[in-house]
Amino acid sequence: MNIEIINTGNELMLGRVLNTHQQWLCRQFADAGYVVTRQVAVADTAVAIQQAVREALTRARLIVSTGGLGPTSDDLTRDAIAELVGRPLREDPTIVAALEAWYAARQRTPSPAVMLQAQVPEGATVLPNANGTAPGLLMEVRAKEGGGAESSWLIMLPGPPRELRPMFAAHVLPWVKATFPLAAPFVCRTLRSTGVPESTMQQQIAGPLAALVARGLEIGYCARPGEVDVRLVARGPEAPALVAEAEAIVRREVGRNLYGVEGESLEAAVVRELAGRRQSLAVAESCTGGRIANRVTDVPGASEVFWGGFITYSNALKERLLGVRAETLAAHGAVSEATAREMAEGARARTGADYALAATGIAGPGGGTPDKPVGTVFIALANAGGTRVVRMLNAFDRDTFKQVTSQQALELLRQRLLE
Amino acid sequence: MNIEIINTGNELMLGRVLNTHQQWLCRQFADAGYVVTRQVAVADTAVAIQQAVREALTRARLIVSTGGLGPTSDDLTRDAIAELVGRPLREDPTIVAALEAWYAARQRTPSPAVMLQAQVPEGATVLPNANGTAPGLLMEVRAKEGGGAESSWLIMLPGPPRELRPMFAAHVLPWVKATFPLAAPFVCRTLRSTGVPESTMQQQIAGPLAALVARGLEIGYCARPGEVDVRLVARGPEAPALVAEAEAIVRREVGRNLYGVEGESLEAAVVRELAGRRQSLAVAESCTGGRIANRVTDVPGASEVFWGGFITYSNALKERLLGVRAETLAAHGAVSEATAREMAEGARARTGADYALAATGIAGPGGGTPDKPVGTVFIALANAGGTRVVRMLNAFDRDTFKQVTSQQALELLRQRLLE
Repeated sequence: MNIEIINTGNELMLGRVLNTHQQWLCRQFADAGYVVTRQVAVADTAVAIQQAVREALTRARLIVSTGGLGPTSDDLTRDAIAELVGRPLREDPTIVAALEAWYAARQRTPSPAVMLQAQVPEGATVLPNANGTAPGLLMEVRAKEGGGAESSWLIMLPGPPRELRPMFAAHVLPWVKATFPLAAPFVCRTLRSTGVPESTMQQQIAGPLAALVARGLEIGYCARPGEVDVRLVARGPEAPALVAEAEAIVRREVGRNLYGVEGESLEAAVVRELAGRRQSLAVAESCTGGRIANRVTDVPGASEVFWGGFITYSNALKERLLGVRAETLAAHGAVSEATAREMAEGARARTGADYALAATGIAGPGGGTPDKPVGTVFIALANAGGTRVVRMLNAFDRDTFKQVTSQQALELLRQRLLE
Repeated sequence: MNIEIINTGNELMLGRVLNTHQQWLCRQFADAGYVVTRQVAVADTAVAIQQAVREALTRARLIVSTGGLGPTSDDLTRDAIAELVGRPLREDPTIVAALEAWYAARQRTPSPAVMLQAQVPEGATVLPNANGTAPGLLMEVRAKEGGGAESSWLIMLPGPPRELRPMFAAHVLPWVKATFPLAAPFVCRTLRSTGVPESTMQQQIAGPLAALVARGLEIGYCARPGEVDVRLVARGPEAPALVAEAEAIVRREVGRNLYGVEGESLEAAVVRELAGRRQSLAVAESCTGGRIANRVTDVPGASEVFWGGFITYSNALKERLLGVRAETLAAHGAVSEATAREMAEGARARTGADYALAATGIAGPGGGTPDKPVGTVFIALANAGGTRVVRMLNAFDRDTFKQVTSQQALELLRQRLLE
């Protein structure tokens, strides 16, 4: 079954806002076993909206539009679609009453423009809006009105997320499930990894998963700086077993490089592992400049395991705040195994945390040498059992360098916790 | 001229990632005077990609696709498009050499899958990828190959933003400007502000700009957490004068709340102001957890002005690392004017920096009291002349709380520097 989403809005086409509707709606559909086949964004002109809807009607069983139902001059979706499918607009007395009640409750009087929202294409079902004034609309479009061989369904939702999301959950998804019951189970599972490049990941798992792919498993990869997601998808009566079997194979092949499932971040996994052990963390950051601490403190509940730490961008502060020895800096330089070690040990001694992570490196663009090219970084992890230092080469732009280095530092700690 | 964007990726259709390409590309085009007329997202199957491209070719002069150029099995865009327009793939020796150099520099050996990225449709121009392995591709599609009445241009860009964005800036936008010169001058100027809500901004400038709007000026607003951009746009021979006049009016009305132009960040403006004065900064962060330091160190050249600082998430570290007095914490609490003051003064004394910024607050969801509800934050700025503390109420989600608080802290410093 084809499902298409049409997002309308000049602000989308001018790149002024991020289209969060696409991800949210696609995810809601996918989690219920329906896959959106196409998403289209167009400006909010009648011509552009009608062209997009006309084309979608030839392909899709279900079309969801967002935006353009409100009271202002650029709210054209309802009128444009009614005109396209040849349905006159009629004032709906229940909407009139709802609008009057909404404004009365706020001690305001609705303007004539507001009352335009009570205009409904003939034959459409009204979806109540619990969080705003523009109702949603649901209508069947038969083939002779522009629909495909079978009739199509058009659902128009208001643009504000806080109106659209509750309306979709309360009125659209239950209707979709009842109207288009799934022929077979659907399972989608995402496993998140770090420390394995995308191409290596595929080399590791593609062979072992080949037999399952032949039985209908789909594999997807999604790479971000320092991490790769593997997505396992299947449909049909075998789907739960197929995906479970595939997950077991990926876990066997990729093993401890998998840090979480679905939307969990590496920092959330680290906070979870530390909290489970009632252990604490401090940091001493040079080249990452606070990125590690910022990521860890993005996690709700981080204060239970994260005590704080030091940002020592200058050599003077490495000595003064962390006790790195002047001789170490003179003999080995600020970017060295010895300095990273003394930073981590200094941070641990000064905070009393169980673990201390330190990073010192050359983010670039300047500062490289033949021995230590731009991107060179030393990451140290100190705990009661001793200090471990790794050397990495992260030859990226500044932002990616900080992100990947913080990723490697968090992963060094996570691997240590799993030992 | 019609411009269409085609984003490919199952992860988009399954709602697993946010489509940031749409906003970024639409914005880049709009800022250069070109408006994207349609954006489409489809799954990464050959059928879906070919259908989307086939339809776009009937409408658009320029089509930009994103994703599907990499080395894994779901990277199908290049092959699907080459097949659609009937162009055989040929190995490009310059890409082969670039791939071998890329892997040699990282002391790794490219797999055969990686080398597939050297396959180029006949007649396509290769766009070098400075930040990854998959090159971009640019090709003209004539009407008999599926293009419209005029020939169309197809540009294929890699999916990772850190590869796509520099490639677009270096190779695509200059080519677009040269190939499709604008018929009339186009000027787009963005002024960035902080500390003024969007509706207040509009009240301040809409009246004074009304006469220019009547002469063709367009005003746009874009609000992000803690900041508002004002966009001044005009077309035609009068455009440069109109926009210059409008900018003067906005500067007069909004004054010191404007911190930069175009893409400059507040942290970059702060680093610029500090560097111009040869002054230095340190931080003491509690509730922001490293966000201020992370933002400042995102700016190239930050090491000239930023020395480092402290993250003191726990009360114990506020005392031990910054010298906040136990009596202060007992009498006023960690979230108080007195604690913020002692944090900033402690950070300044311990680092020797000219300025020290401190933030302590309640990010939530827990921890609020009637006196100090969730979102309460105290921000302190210490320098040789004394210490200034402001109290704010940032009742947002955790991430927005950290972002807005770091914004207010940086702005407190910037305003102090301008005095």
